[in-house]
Amino acid sequence: MARRGRTTIDSLLAPVRDVLNRRIFPDRGLTDPQLELMFQILSSMDTDKDPEAARVGEREARVASPYVASLAADFNHGIGRSGQLSAPQPKAAGASLMQQVANSTALDAIRKLGLSNTKAGLVTPVSTGMSIALVMGALRRELGIKNVIYPRIDHTSPKRGIALAGLDEVQIPTVIEDDAVRMDLGEFENSIKRTKACAVLATTTFFPPRESDPVKQIARLCSDHDIPFIINNAYGVQSQDIMAQIRSAIDAGRVDAIVQSSDKNFLTPVGGSIVVSPKSEIIEWTSDTYAGRASAAPVIQTLAALLSLGHERYKELQQQQLENLALLKDNILNIAEKLNQRVLEIENPVAFAITMDNLDVHEIGARLYNARVTGPRAVKKGDFGSSTENYPHSYIVMNAAIGVRKEDVDTATDKLYKEASR
Amino acid sequence: MARRGRTTIDSLLAPVRDVLNRRIFPDRGLTDPQLELMFQILSSMDTDKDPEAARVGEREARVASPYVASLAADFNHGIGRSGQLSAPQPKAAGASLMQQVANSTALDAIRKLGLSNTKAGLVTPVSTGMSIALVMGALRRELGIKNVIYPRIDHTSPKRGIALAGLDEVQIPTVIEDDAVRMDLGEFENSIKRTKACAVLATTTFFPPRESDPVKQIARLCSDHDIPFIINNAYGVQSQDIMAQIRSAIDAGRVDAIVQSSDKNFLTPVGGSIVVSPKSEIIEWTSDTYAGRASAAPVIQTLAALLSLGHERYKELQQQQLENLALLKDNILNIAEKLNQRVLEIENPVAFAITMDNLDVHEIGARLYNARVTGPRAVKKGDFGSSTENYPHSYIVMNAAIGVRKEDVDTATDKLYKEASR
Amino acid sequence: MARRGRTTIDSLLAPVRDVLNRRIFPDRGLTDPQLELMFQILSSMDTDKDPEAARVGEREARVASPYVASLAADFNHGIGRSGQLSAPQPKAAGASLMQQVANSTALDAIRKLGLSNTKAGLVTPVSTGMSIALVMGALRRELGIKNVIYPRIDHTSPKRGIALAGLDEVQIPTVIEDDAVRMDLGEFENSIKRTKACAVLATTTFFPPRESDPVKQIARLCSDHDIPFIINNAYGVQSQDIMAQIRSAIDAGRVDAIVQSSDKNFLTPVGGSIVVSPKSEIIEWTSDTYAGRASAAPVIQTLAALLSLGHERYKELQQQQLENLALLKDNILNIAEKLNQRVLEIENPVAFAITMDNLDVHEIGARLYNARVTGPRAVKKGDFGSSTENYPHSYIVMNAAIGVRKEDVDTATDKLYKEASR
Amino acid sequence: MARRGRTTIDSLLAPVRDVLNRRIFPDRGLTDPQLELMFQILSSMDTDKDPEAARVGEREARVASPYVASLAADFNHGIGRSGQLSAPQPKAAGASLMQQVANSTALDAIRKLGLSNTKAGLVTPVSTGMSIALVMGALRRELGIKNVIYPRIDHTSPKRGIALAGLDEVQIPTVIEDDAVRMDLGEFENSIKRTKACAVLATTTFFPPRESDPVKQIARLCSDHDIPFIINNAYGVQSQDIMAQIRSAIDAGRVDAIVQSSDKNFLTPVGGSIVVSPKSEIIEWTSDTYAGRASAAPVIQTLAALLSLGHERYKELQQQQLENLALLKDNILNIAEKLNQRVLEIENPVAFAITMDNLDVHEIGARLYNARVTGPRAVKKGDFGSSTENYPHSYIVMNAAIGVRKEDVDTATDKLYKEASR
Repeated sequence: MARRGRTTIDSLLAPVRDVLNRRIFPDRGLTDPQLELMFQILSSMDTDKDPEAARVGEREARVASPYVASLAADFNHGIGRSGQLSAPQPKAAGASLMQQVANSTALDAIRKLGLSNTKAGLVTPVSTGMSIALVMGALRRELGIKNVIYPRIDHTSPKRGIALAGLDEVQIPTVIEDDAVRMDLGEFENSIKRTKACAVLATTTFFPPRESDPVKQIARLCSDHDIPFIINNAYGVQSQDIMAQIRSAIDAGRVDAIVQSSDKNFLTPVGGSIVVSPKSEIIEWTSDTYAGRASAAPVIQTLAALLSLGHERYKELQQQQLENLALLKDNILNIAEKLNQRVLEIENPVAFAITMDNLDVHEIGARLYNARVTGPRAVKKGDFGSSTENYPHSYIVMNAAIGVRKEDVDTATDKLYKEASR
Repeated sequence: MARRGRTTIDSLLAPVRDVLNRRIFPDRGLTDPQLELMFQILSSMDTDKDPEAARVGEREARVASPYVASLAADFNHGIGRSGQLSAPQPKAAGASLMQQVANSTALDAIRKLGLSNTKAGLVTPVSTGMSIALVMGALRRELGIKNVIYPRIDHTSPKRGIALAGLDEVQIPTVIEDDAVRMDLGEFENSIKRTKACAVLATTTFFPPRESDPVKQIARLCSDHDIPFIINNAYGVQSQDIMAQIRSAIDAGRVDAIVQSSDKNFLTPVGGSIVVSPKSEIIEWTSDTYAGRASAAPVIQTLAALLSLGHERYKELQQQQLENLALLKDNILNIAEKLNQRVLEIENPVAFAITMDNLDVHEIGARLYNARVTGPRAVKKGDFGSSTENYPHSYIVMNAAIGVRKEDVDTATDKLYKEASR
Repeated sequence: MARRGRTTIDSLLAPVRDVLNRRIFPDRGLTDPQLELMFQILSSMDTDKDPEAARVGEREARVASPYVASLAADFNHGIGRSGQLSAPQPKAAGASLMQQVANSTALDAIRKLGLSNTKAGLVTPVSTGMSIALVMGALRRELGIKNVIYPRIDHTSPKRGIALAGLDEVQIPTVIEDDAVRMDLGEFENSIKRTKACAVLATTTFFPPRESDPVKQIARLCSDHDIPFIINNAYGVQSQDIMAQIRSAIDAGRVDAIVQSSDKNFLTPVGGSIVVSPKSEIIEWTSDTYAGRASAAPVIQTLAALLSLGHERYKELQQQQLENLALLKDNILNIAEKLNQRVLEIENPVAFAITMDNLDVHEIGARLYNARVTGPRAVKKGDFGSSTENYPHSYIVMNAAIGVRKEDVDTATDKLYKEASR
Repeated sequence: MARRGRTTIDSLLAPVRDVLNRRIFPDRGLTDPQLELMFQILSSMDTDKDPEAARVGEREARVASPYVASLAADFNHGIGRSGQLSAPQPKAAGASLMQQVANSTALDAIRKLGLSNTKAGLVTPVSTGMSIALVMGALRRELGIKNVIYPRIDHTSPKRGIALAGLDEVQIPTVIEDDAVRMDLGEFENSIKRTKACAVLATTTFFPPRESDPVKQIARLCSDHDIPFIINNAYGVQSQDIMAQIRSAIDAGRVDAIVQSSDKNFLTPVGGSIVVSPKSEIIEWTSDTYAGRASAAPVIQTLAALLSLGHERYKELQQQQLENLALLKDNILNIAEKLNQRVLEIENPVAFAITMDNLDVHEIGARLYNARVTGPRAVKKGDFGSSTENYPHSYIVMNAAIGVRKEDVDTATDKLYKEASR
C-alpha cells in the first residue's frame, strides 16, 4: 500500500519533473494541483524561505503578511538582477530557475506553433508596448538606432513604446484598396532608403479594415538594407496563417525580434509578453534593458498558462477559434443583410467589421456596453481607429479570438442586431 | 443572534469599507482575511466575472485555469488602458478602482511618513529603475529633456533607466572626505550651468561609503536654473531623517518627482514602485508613459502590504529598525576591534561598513553566502561599488533595514567574525 | 462604469443570495468562486471573527494558525449546541445558518431526485453507519426500541451502527433465487411478528449478487405492525428506480427515515450523510442524539457539493452513469464470453458481477490493485461478502457509479481481461 | 546557487520529514507553508490523485469541484475502513498514514504534557461526548458493560454519549462544601458496590462551583472492584495540576481511557477529540466502534494544530494562561468588592465565578452577549448548571482558558462591571 502511495505521487509529479528537466511546451497540460506544487517547490528554493538564513541586505524579500506573499505565489524576491531580467539572482535560486523554465517553455511553444526558425525567447514582465520599448532600447544601445519606421496603425501603445525608448517614429501612410487599409509599400521603400540609423516595426494583427503588414517583403527589404526588423505579433500566435508568414519572413530576410502578448495568445492574466528571435543576442540585449529587478508575477502567470494548456489543448482551442470565427461570419452576414449594411472584405485572423453607415455608431457601441457585450469596437467614419484619414464607412468590429465561446458570439451578434435595428 | 452575526460582519468589513471610501493609509492594519475579501470584491467587479457578459474583444481576460487566475488575484484584465496606467478601463471597473485606491493610499502613506508637501502619487507595476525611466520619458516628451545630470552612484539600474528613456547620462564625480564618498558639489554646479535640456537625478540611499546627495541644496539650484529634479529615494521612506531632508528640499526649491521602491520600504514582494510629486501633472505625465495595459499584480501587492501594515505597525517597524541598527553598530564595532579593522564613519540610515584591509574580502563574502548570510556586500579596494575610483579600503557592508530581526543581525555578525577571523 | 461594476457583482452574487434566501437545490450549479464567497460570508458571521469581541469561554474557536482555520473553511466553532446538531449556537450565527441551509438544500435535492414525499432532512457530520446509529439511538430513546430486524447484508458498518446504539441485531437470512441473493421474506414476516420492541433496517444498494430489499412490501408490513422502518439507501439517490421504490414505500406504508451517503451520491469527500424522513419529529430526534458540538467540515463539504452540482448537472451525471453502466455491461459480457465465464443476472443500479470460477479470484483482485484499478470487489466462493453462506460462484464486481468516466470503465475492463486471462 | 536552493528546500522540509518519520509532538512548531506542503504530499498519495487509476468502485473519492476537494484538504477518501477508524485503507495510503501520524503525535503530546504513563492514542473525528460514546460502546461490546456510574455534572453532551451507547446512567449526587460542589464520595462507594456490569465516568474540568472529581481515589476504587474507569478530561490538558492528578490516578489504580477535546486544549476548530489510554487494547476497541469511514477533516485539523503549536509554544501558552487567570482573579475580586458580591472559593484551572445575588443574572448575561462578550455563563440560583439542586447563589462564570488574551480578560471584566452596576 505504501508502494501504491508512492506510485500515485510519482505519477502526479512526473509532468512537473518533466517541465523542470526538459523545459518544453508539454503535449498534455498540467492540472492545477500539479502547477501549484511546482511553483511551491520553486519558490521554496528562494533564500527568504530558509529558516536558518540571516538576512542583512537592504532588500530581503520580507513581506507584510502571508496573504501579501501569496499574491506573488511566494516569489518575493522577484526576478532578475539589477538591470538583467534573466540573470540568476543568488538570493533567488527558485525564481531564477523559474524564469529560465518560462523562457524555454515559451520559446518552445512559439516554435511548435509555427516559428520553428526562432532560437531564443524571453518572457517579459511588461506589456507588448513596453516590450517593444525594451527591444528598441536594446537596439538603440547596441546598434545606435535613432528612428523607427512604422507603417501606420491607430494604436497608442506601440507609439508610446517607441517614444519611451527615445526614438523618433517615422510613420508610413496607408492606402485604401477596396475595403482594406494597407501600408503604402512604395512609401515604405522610399523611407527605408532615406532614413538613417533606423529600425522597422511592422504589425501582423490589428482591427479591420487595417490588414497585416507584408512581413516577408519587409524582411527582404530590411535584409537588403541591413536594417533591424521588429514584428509586433500581438495576438498572431493563435493564427497558423500569420505564423506561417512570419516563419517565411525569417527564412527570406531579416527579422530581429517578434513580440507577442501572453494574455491575447495564451489565456494568461494581462501583463506579460513573449519576445522571440532567430538571433540569441537580441534576446540577451533585451533582457539587459529592463532597469532593475522585476515582479515575478507576470512571468509566473505566463508559464502557468502555457503549462496548463499544453500543445494538445492549444490546438483544440485553435480549432474552436476557427469554428467560432466562421459562426461570427455567418451571424454578421445575416445581420448585414437585414440591416442593409455590408460586412467589410478584409483579411483578419480573428475579426469581422460590419458597416454602420447612416447609423449613430457611437450610440450603438454604448448600448452594447450596457447590454453587457464587451470588446466590440465602434468607429465612426473619419475617426481615429481606421489607420487612415478618410475611410468611407462607420463600422463595428467584433472578434472571435482564441478562448471565445459559441455563446459569446451568438449573444453578441443577437444584441448587435437588436441595438442596431432599434 | 442574526443581529449579532450581522454586527460581526459589519465590524469585520468596516476597515474594508473605510479603505474603499477614504483611500488613506490606515492607522491600524487590516487582517489577511479582510484583505482577501477586499480584493475579491474588487476583482469581482471586472467584466470577466459577469456570467451574463458576451465577450467579443481580442483581449477578454480569459484564463487557462482557476489556478492561473488566482496568480493574479483574479485581476485578469490588468490595469490601465492602452498607454495610460491610471486611466479607467471600462472592462475592468474593479481593477481601475483598485489602482486609484492604491495611488491614494500610497500617497497618503508617503505624506504621513514625512513628505506632507507632496500632492499626487502613482503605484507603478515596475521596478524603481524602470519608474525612473517612465518619469524621464515623461520629461523628455513634455519638457524636451535630453540629458540627465547624475552624481555618481555605482548602481546599474538607474543608469539603465536613463538609457532606456533615450537620455544621455552626465555623470558628476564624487570626492572622498574622511571616510565618506560624496558628490562633488562644485562639479555639479558647473554641470547644471553648462548642460542644455537637462534634468537632475539624485540619490538618497546607497551603500556606505557613499553618502546621500544633498537634496535641499540641489533643489535650490534646480529652482534657480529651472531644471527638473528627480529624487531616487529607493529605500529612504523608512528613515525619518531622509524624509525630512526631502520635505525641506521640496519646500526650499524644485523637486519634480520622488521615486521609491515598494518592497524595500513597505515589505511587498519585489516589483513595484511608488512615484510621488508636489505637482500632479508630473504624475499624470508619468502615468501616460507606460506603453500598454499592465500587470495588476505589483500594484495589488503594494496596496495589500500598505493596508496590512497600517501606520501604527509601520512606526513600530521603524522603531525596531533603529534598535537593530544600533545593535548592528555595537556588534560590528566589537568585531572591528577584535580584527584590528575599523567601522567606517559614514552617515547611512540602514547600513554600516567594516574595513577588510589585507583580507581576501571576496572569499569572505563567498563564505558568508555559503553560511547562509544573505545581503552583505563585499567590495574590494578599487572595485566598482564604492562610487569612486580610488577608495582606500576593502570593506563589507551590512544592513539593518526595515523588517530585519534581531536574530538576523546577531547571526550575521557572528558569522562575519567567524569567517573573517579564520 | 461603476454601475457596470455593480451589475457584474450583482450577477455574480445573485445565485449566492438565492441559496441563502430560498435554500433549495438550484437548477444550475454555483461556480467555485461563488461558493468560496458564500462560505466566507457565512463564516464571517461567527463571533470569533468579531474584532471587538471579548472572549472568556472555555471554548472560543481560537485556532493555532490561519492554515489550521482554513482547514475548517474558518467555521471554527463547529456546528450545533451541546447535544443538538441543528440547534442555533449563539457564538456561531454563521455556522448555524449554514447548517440550516445545508439541511434544507439536501432535503430539496432528495425531494427533487425522487422522494417528493419526504418532509424533513438533516446533513450529519458522520458516516452512513454512524447516522444509522444516531437514528437508532433516537428511536431507542423516544420509542423504547431494543432490537433491529436486519435482512442480511455482508457489510460491517451498519452492524456497527446498530451495536453502537446498544441494540440487538436480529438477522434475517437470505435465499438464493437463480443468480440473485435476496432476503427471505417469509422469515422476515415471522420475525416482525415475534420480535418485541423492534425496528427494521433494510437496504437498497449493495454489491451483486445481493439484490435490494423490497422496501414497499416491508413498509406495508411495518405499517401493519406499527414498527419503525429505516432504509439504508447508501448510494441509491443516483438511481431513479430505487428512488421510485422508496417513494412508493412511503406512500404505501411506514417509513421513518432514509439514510444516504453524501459522498457516494453527491461527489463530496467522504464523511457526511443525509437523513430524510416523511416525519419531521424523526429528524429532530436524530439531531438531538449527537453528543456535543460537531465538526462543520462534513456539512460544508456536502452543501458545497450540492450547490456546485445543481439539478441540471446532476441529471447529466445520472444520464452518463446509465451510459457507462451499459458500457460496463457490454465490456464485461464480452470478457465473460472470452473467458468462458458468466455475467451474473442481478438487478443492481450501478454494478455487474462476473464469475471467476476455477480461477484464483483473490490473486486477480490483487493484480488489479497493482495495475491501478481501484474499487473492484473480488469474492471467493464461500467467503463473507455474498450475504449468504453458500453462494455457488467466485466472482468480481465492478461498478459504474455516478461520476465514473468512460475511460475508467474501459481501462478497468481491459485490465480485468488481461489479468484474468494470464 | 543551485546547491543553495537545495539547502533552502531541505531546511524547509526537514521538520516535515521529521514529523512523518518520528511522529512526535515537535519542540518547535511548523510554519503554515510547511504544514500545507506536508498535507499536500500526504493527500497526493491517495489513489484519487493517480492520473492513471481506473476507478470502478461505488465510492471513489470523486468530488464535485476543486473547491469542494479543498474543503477536505484533498483527503477525499476520508479515513478508516468500514468500521475501523485506524485501519489502513488501500485506496487511501496518504490518509491512512496521516491518521497514524495524528494518533502518534497526539499521544506524544499528551504524554509530554503530563500523562507519561499512557501507551496508546487515537484522534477521533467526533466530539468529546461522541468519543465517550465510542469508548462506552467498545466497553459494552468487549466487556459487557450495561451501566455507567456518573457523578453529577450539569452538562448534556456526556449524558447523550452514555445514552447513545445504549447504557444506563447511574447518577451520583453532589454535596456542597463551603462554596464548592463536589461529588458525594460515600454515595459513589455505595454505588460501585451495588451496580452490576458497570463502568465509571468521572470529570476533571467543569464550571465553578463544581470541582474536579477525585480521579486518584476513584481509580483506586475501580481497581479494587475491577471496574472500567473513563475520565472526561475535556479541557484539562492545559492544566499541569489536573494532568498530574490523572497521572497519579493511572499509577495508583485503574484508568481505561482519558478523553479530551482537541479544540479546547489545542486550538483546533471544533470537532475532534483525543482518546488516550494506558492500555492499547482499549484504543483498538474504540477505533473498532466507529461505524464506517469517517471525515478526515477533524483529524487533519487536530494534527495541524498540534504541529503548528509545538511543545515550546504550548508551554508559553500555558504560562500566559496562568498569567491571564491571575489577572482575571484580580479584576473579578475588584469588581466583587465594588458590587458587594463575592468571588466563590473554588478550585478550577481556568475559571472564576462571582456571585450575582439579588441581581437579575439572566439580564446581565444577555447584556454581556449584546456587548460582545462571549463565553460567560450566567446561572440563576436553583437553575440547572450548578450540578446540585440547591446552590445558594446566582453567579456568573468567566474563563481564562488557553489562548485567551489579556485584552479579552480586561474588556470582559470591564463590561461585566458596567453591566452589573447599571
